[in-house]
Amino acid sequence: MGGDFAPRATVAGALQSLTELESRHTIQLVGQTSVIERELHDLFSGEFAGQSSRGVGRDRIEVVEAPEAIDMTDKPGVAVRSKPNSSMVVGLRLQAEGKSDGFVSAGNTGAQMAASMIILKLHEGLKRPAIATIFPTSRQPVVVLDSGANVDCSADELVQFARLGAVYAEDILGRDNPSVGLLSIGEEPEKGNSVVKEAHELLRAAGLNFIGNVEGRDVPAGQCDRGPIDVVVCDGFVGNVVLKFYEAVAPMMVGILKRAGVEPQRLTAALKDLDYSEHGGAPLLGVRGVSIISHGKSSPRAIKNAIGVAVRAVESHMDEHIGRGLQAVAGEGEAA
Amino acid sequence: MGGDFAPRATVAGALQSLTELESRHTIQLVGQTSVIERELHDLFSGEFAGQSSRGVGRDRIEVVEAPEAIDMTDKPGVAVRSKPNSSMVVGLRLQAEGKSDGFVSAGNTGAQMAASMIILKLHEGLKRPAIATIFPTSRQPVVVLDSGANVDCSADELVQFARLGAVYAEDILGRDNPSVGLLSIGEEPEKGNSVVKEAHELLRAAGLNFIGNVEGRDVPAGQCDRGPIDVVVCDGFVGNVVLKFYEAVAPMMVGILKRAGVEPQRLTAALKDLDYSEHGGAPLLGVRGVSIISHGKSSPRAIKNAIGVAVRAVESHMDEHIGRGLQAVAGEGEAA
Repeated sequence: MGGDFAPRATVAGALQSLTELESRHTIQLVGQTSVIERELHDLFSGEFAGQSSRGVGRDRIEVVEAPEAIDMTDKPGVAVRSKPNSSMVVGLRLQAEGKSDGFVSAGNTGAQMAASMIILKLHEGLKRPAIATIFPTSRQPVVVLDSGANVDCSADELVQFARLGAVYAEDILGRDNPSVGLLSIGEEPEKGNSVVKEAHELLRAAGLNFIGNVEGRDVPAGQCDRGPIDVVVCDGFVGNVVLKFYEAVAPMMVGILKRAGVEPQRLTAALKDLDYSEHGGAPLLGVRGVSIISHGKSSPRAIKNAIGVAVRAVESHMDEHIGRGLQAVAGEGEAA
Repeated sequence: MGGDFAPRATVAGALQSLTELESRHTIQLVGQTSVIERELHDLFSGEFAGQSSRGVGRDRIEVVEAPEAIDMTDKPGVAVRSKPNSSMVVGLRLQAEGKSDGFVSAGNTGAQMAASMIILKLHEGLKRPAIATIFPTSRQPVVVLDSGANVDCSADELVQFARLGAVYAEDILGRDNPSVGLLSIGEEPEKGNSVVKEAHELLRAAGLNFIGNVEGRDVPAGQCDRGPIDVVVCDGFVGNVVLKFYEAVAPMMVGILKRAGVEPQRLTAALKDLDYSEHGGAPLLGVRGVSIISHGKSSPRAIKNAIGVAVRAVESHMDEHIGRGLQAVAGEGEAA
């Protein structure tokens, strides 16, 4: 029920994803049954009728009733407690009860984070989850985290983000021994604010493929002079500012180029790679389970891609890898 | 002598600027006399010969000997003290001695900052200067500060940046009652890290045209839903990351569009507005005098524009306005 174009975009995205997923996959649509049923009816008798459904039938879709909905303007912590029958809370509870494997939402991000922490719980040693976002670059896409869940971070937390991001890059993006860069204002270890300088030292001893500091310019390039970058670590304040900045730059440039007479179709095709909806949802890393944040303005295509991320997270056992990675560190800490 | 394309680009930019400035303006070229004289000779007998000089003669150019040069890799504080006869130190000393009105360099930014603080001194109440950078946007250009001089900032320092930026926007960009936004991760006052939340409260009572928090997406847009933005305030870590990110996005998009078959000439013309060299140098705000930082990769055009910023700063008495603005606040503080 959450998201600027819900429930239509969400239901349509779910149907699209079923046409691409193997037939053993099913989807639960959580929300007001009557509203969802109407959307399903419209889609199956409209754009999803006949051939376009590619054989996907109602048997792969379960509608789960959740009479309440958390609004985009609701205060996260309050909403989660005061709306126990919201689609957000009910949907996540299905996973905690073993009735589903992953959860995707385009709703209130803060509420999804709060509900995921309360219902799915966090891995031991974590105080908060991190949001991992994919940035398109001139090379391969890069994982940037945290992109908004944690604003005041300690150096230890930045190291945790590095561990979470490395597992994500390996399991979801298929990167082998992912390279981890620390976002700073110069490549030298002594460049940066006090937290970043401390994190740099900790990351050198963290057992990760740490390639040192990376700068703002290295992110759109997807590489620094020490090679390609898979994971960029930063606090959630910087990450969120840069993410929103990035999202706004492409439309700005399209506007400039259109005014200069470049054909719109050509632009659209060229800039498809820069469209966030191509890169699916952003996983909330650190929770015990799979909770994927999709952009509030998600199109059906973005929802479909977010579901794809959820499937890859479940099938690669990303959550267990994260748990093992964090446990190994805790173990080392005890041994030392 | 500083900058990736010095001394050629610097000398050529100085000559270009003289063709546009009124005839009462003169330029001092500070560095190794023999090297500069050779450049001048080459330019006056080559691209700057005849008509293209538009009547600019050697009488408007003074060469000031400075045998040493600070390298891009020199440690700022050390270099300033160990190279007292460097072009950086000699050039700034001319201003302190009343022999020039403004200083422009494309050299080592850290050294320029250190030398400016030592030689020109700071206005009372400031601990460090701030670097103000112009960001091209979909609307009018926006001043972003600090963009790299101060990494760990207090809320008080962010308020000082707001005051410095407002004077800059008024004096250099000609904005009337400039609007000041605080860069954060949501428009609500309670969004942001702890320093930003504190700065938000202080800015509401600072007597500026404070329009509240602005987000990453508002910067390329040049506006938020409360209207156009003239000044964006952030700490130097965030500002530097976003600045370098921005500088790298345009080339990245040009690459994507070229591969998609958009004609390069059309792109170049369209993206001219996004070229930092069009927007001249970044003033070091807070020093008693005029010290303009030009990009290390400055072209002659960028140098020319940086000199233009220096001239506007001198002629608008920006430095005095800043001094008065900071004094008024100190006075209020005492009265309260």
